[in-house]
Amino acid sequence: MRFPTPLASVAALCAATLFNPVRAAEGTAADEKMLRAIYTAALTNGPAYEHLRELTTKYPGRLAGSKNLEGAVQWGEALLKATGADRTELQPAMVPHWERGAKESIAIVGGVKLTAVALGGSVPTPAGGLRAPVVEVQSLAALKTTDVKGKIVFFNRPMNPEYINPGLSYRDAGDQRNQGPGEAAKYGAVGALVRSLTHAHDDVPHTGATTYPPDGPKIPAAALSTIAADNLSAALKLDSSLTVEMTINSRWFEDAPSHNVIGELRGSEHPEQIIVVGGHLDAWDIAPGAHDDGSGVVQSIEVMRLLKAAGYQPRHTLRVVLFTNEENGTRGATAYSTAVQEKKEQHLFALETDNGGFQPRGFNLGNPAGNAARRAARWRGLFEPYGIYSFSDGVGGTDVHPLLAQGTTVAGLTPDSQRYFDIHHTTEDSIDKVNPRELELGAAAMASLIYLVDQYGL
Amino acid sequence: MRFPTPLASVAALCAATLFNPVRAAEGTAADEKMLRAIYTAALTNGPAYEHLRELTTKYPGRLAGSKNLEGAVQWGEALLKATGADRTELQPAMVPHWERGAKESIAIVGGVKLTAVALGGSVPTPAGGLRAPVVEVQSLAALKTTDVKGKIVFFNRPMNPEYINPGLSYRDAGDQRNQGPGEAAKYGAVGALVRSLTHAHDDVPHTGATTYPPDGPKIPAAALSTIAADNLSAALKLDSSLTVEMTINSRWFEDAPSHNVIGELRGSEHPEQIIVVGGHLDAWDIAPGAHDDGSGVVQSIEVMRLLKAAGYQPRHTLRVVLFTNEENGTRGATAYSTAVQEKKEQHLFALETDNGGFQPRGFNLGNPAGNAARRAARWRGLFEPYGIYSFSDGVGGTDVHPLLAQGTTVAGLTPDSQRYFDIHHTTEDSIDKVNPRELELGAAAMASLIYLVDQYGL
Repeated sequence: MRFPTPLASVAALCAATLFNPVRAAEGTAADEKMLRAIYTAALTNGPAYEHLRELTTKYPGRLAGSKNLEGAVQWGEALLKATGADRTELQPAMVPHWERGAKESIAIVGGVKLTAVALGGSVPTPAGGLRAPVVEVQSLAALKTTDVKGKIVFFNRPMNPEYINPGLSYRDAGDQRNQGPGEAAKYGAVGALVRSLTHAHDDVPHTGATTYPPDGPKIPAAALSTIAADNLSAALKLDSSLTVEMTINSRWFEDAPSHNVIGELRGSEHPEQIIVVGGHLDAWDIAPGAHDDGSGVVQSIEVMRLLKAAGYQPRHTLRVVLFTNEENGTRGATAYSTAVQEKKEQHLFALETDNGGFQPRGFNLGNPAGNAARRAARWRGLFEPYGIYSFSDGVGGTDVHPLLAQGTTVAGLTPDSQRYFDIHHTTEDSIDKVNPRELELGAAAMASLIYLVDQYGL
Repeated sequence: MRFPTPLASVAALCAATLFNPVRAAEGTAADEKMLRAIYTAALTNGPAYEHLRELTTKYPGRLAGSKNLEGAVQWGEALLKATGADRTELQPAMVPHWERGAKESIAIVGGVKLTAVALGGSVPTPAGGLRAPVVEVQSLAALKTTDVKGKIVFFNRPMNPEYINPGLSYRDAGDQRNQGPGEAAKYGAVGALVRSLTHAHDDVPHTGATTYPPDGPKIPAAALSTIAADNLSAALKLDSSLTVEMTINSRWFEDAPSHNVIGELRGSEHPEQIIVVGGHLDAWDIAPGAHDDGSGVVQSIEVMRLLKAAGYQPRHTLRVVLFTNEENGTRGATAYSTAVQEKKEQHLFALETDNGGFQPRGFNLGNPAGNAARRAARWRGLFEPYGIYSFSDGVGGTDVHPLLAQGTTVAGLTPDSQRYFDIHHTTEDSIDKVNPRELELGAAAMASLIYLVDQYGL
């Protein structure tokens, strides 16, 4: 998951949904039986965890423009075929291509090394590195009242622990990483260091995209581990004139070809009407990408397998989409929604899973009428035996969000997120942090929701 | 957590609860504000995780009869004093004293070593070890139709993955470990091996108590890791006459002195009426005991701190109880409930936390009238913003369960349990498996429930 985008205005959107079937048997024993069959198929010798092991072992660090991402594209298409897709497709998308180069190095001159990682999209330091005094700030607003000219700006506001959902803490602190370096550059700063976006207190630095205003200056930017950030802050209290040396060896290349991977089960009654389930194939260059979003990839494919294993033939076409380039460009999502518009495809529903493969608790949902969460909540009784109880308003996720503007009901799986930001965008986002049953329960919850939407609409 | 005990018949129990205050303001903004204050205190620089680090680092493997358990007793009392208890007490209990001795060893003769751990309470093998052929069974019932005389019985039924709650899978498979060796001995078996009670497929063996019928023969018993169990099963398919060598060096000693640790905040209105919150101090000899039940210990102490930090003065006496010897004797629980009876103490409510320090999802509750869960569910609206939504019928837990027979409403915290049996009763039950925020959220949920019960009754 990258930095969440705000909900676009939906006032201008078409208010009618395409899909309003009336079927009689909703919520009966047949539905209970189908959910039980889906969960049993998921929990009994399901292959999702082994798929995740293969993806993260063979294709770690599958950032846009990398060989590993295109290897994962081939792997994903082959797996969709093996899972029984009637049709597969590689949908082209040109993606940004940024590489870290030789490992970055950040140190207090005459002092300790600071564990750090360049932010995705950062420009490099000058050859031979950059040395400058450091000034610590807690917010972007502080740039207006702080002399940062010729300095390295150190954004050190921790994530707020008071939110119950760490995603909200992440969003609140995220402006430092996302816009901080670009904003600091406007005020004459020569470099930026950003406290890692995590509640964890450890020496693991977290990367993620930073973006510069298109017409502004660009300065090199790195994230410090939370321990490194505390060390630097303490050192500044002792010596406010200390100097830091940064070396970042990143490089931008020409846009590179990539692909969304698509696999379909053709609908038995309305094959022209499409239900999407998807996650994103790419991952940060330093990360195995197990929770972000290998889990979503294998869960989306597992949804197809589970419906087949439960003996369910979808009425509408079920389309699994493995999006490319979610982390630093969302060109996959753009290519997908553009193609939907150009082909005038009817999309009923699009479910994304990009919040980690943790124990699922519910879904966030959005439609133009603003009542999708309320409508889905009518199935709460069916879901509660499986620990799914939360149906909240939302926009699905980065990759399906553009479809909302086209009238599609969008949704995102909501797993427990307390552990997510401990390992998000780091070398630690590895398969040992994923619990097989939690992964399987997430896929089963998704397949169950898709079964109900396919049967009764939303 | 040890093997759960079934619900005692409550038909004969006193049907009236002691406590039925009528207060007007229930469920208002004041309650919302108090819960928010409790959660903020828990999530902002709370000490619970550091307490857990200290307990598991200084006093790992604190089994009944060990020095580490009595060290933890002293530590617990000191921490309760430091947290502001008005009164502390060490309540004596004589506890069983079993020691593993030199490390056990199990191997296929002429074949591979099988990763194993003696079951708690096992008798030792004869000096020089035990060699015998092995017979695999899937159930205790199979003992009636299988020739086990002179053999080592290998109980190899996996936990059933179809349950959503792994606790139910654990209970279903648990007869093999708990009663299997004793039952096999009755039929002339000379030793017992039991598949570890876990969904994990790894080389980590899980211990836990086994019990022999008082008048029957006793044979040595060990748990195999799930990989070792699969290896042994595969080897038996190739050679049904293979022989296993077991060496177990355990020893029973005289009962040893131990203590429940008690700390109180005196109630402002009804000091003679008591609300208990507790977990158990002991842990298996091989386990750091972080989730089982170090988490419960520090959460129970944290409840006292949180109510004080939120500025709340309990109307009834809040008593934190750190029980001794939950794992292999429950003598702490017996001593506690006996003292309650002898002193005719009025206990309104007793909340236990012994299901791991994972993300909390709700509570199980029981009272003589059988409506405790339903009554607690009236607070669901207050709890849902914190991810607490489940109020189910139950018996609290092993340590508070005896109080139900005395008319007390009992409850247990229900955390997510998908990861619990991966590490339960193993060397892996260490602090790195506990997430600080999940631990804190559990304590906040408990403090919130206790606040509401103290205010409005249940």
